[in-house]
Amino acid sequence: MDSLTMKNALQEYVDAFNANDLERLMALFSDEASVEDPFGSPAKNGHQEVKAFFAESMSGANLELLAAPRGSHSNAAAITFAVHTEKEGHPIRIDVTDVMTFDSEGKIATMHAYWGPDDIQQL
Amino acid sequence: MDSLTMKNALQEYVDAFNANDLERLMALFSDEASVEDPFGSPAKNGHQEVKAFFAESMSGANLELLAAPRGSHSNAAAITFAVHTEKEGHPIRIDVTDVMTFDSEGKIATMHAYWGPDDIQQL
Repeated sequence: MDSLTMKNALQEYVDAFNANDLERLMALFSDEASVEDPFGSPAKNGHQEVKAFFAESMSGANLELLAAPRGSHSNAAAITFAVHTEKEGHPIRIDVTDVMTFDSEGKIATMHAYWGPDDIQQL
Repeated sequence: MDSLTMKNALQEYVDAFNANDLERLMALFSDEASVEDPFGSPAKNGHQEVKAFFAESMSGANLELLAAPRGSHSNAAAITFAVHTEKEGHPIRIDVTDVMTFDSEGKIATMHAYWGPDDIQQL
């Protein structure tokens, strides 16, 4: 997996998310993808669970990329961003780093989202 | 492992690195730590290999944190930064995201550094 290709996929992830385009976002993921968001919570496994997760988390949310995507010398890449969204009607910001691994067909196989309880700010 | 404690350890990692203080940096790591920098390269395993790696990579290098450290709901935390250093006498910048996992004693057990061949810029 080429590092630049992975980084472009993560930029497309951000763009699809911000366009609120669920089909476009899901096209980046393997049908067998596993998403652990936040890291330390139960994983969403497979197309249906992952799609349901994003359908909910995307709604009313926007991602602000804080640094250029990072590649690697293997099958993983990372993005660091702030999520601007709402919780119970109040605007919040969640500071996150996502690490994605890619399968041999260039689809996202796993996603680990690093953010802790103290990475949420009420605005 | 408390998320805030892990994030504070990663801030201390940046500060110790920038102070060029190898003993202070190594105090953060388990004696059995494994460091894969970049992700996709052979890991440095155990105190001696990890110390030798940092002795070399620290020299003349400075880390610029680009976003606040991120925690998680488990034993991992992440930092995103630029490394300002030199290669063959020329200034370079490497864009990196590190994910560290912590052992039960609060020491860094693993470090994965995400940066690809195209995340190095000649300045």
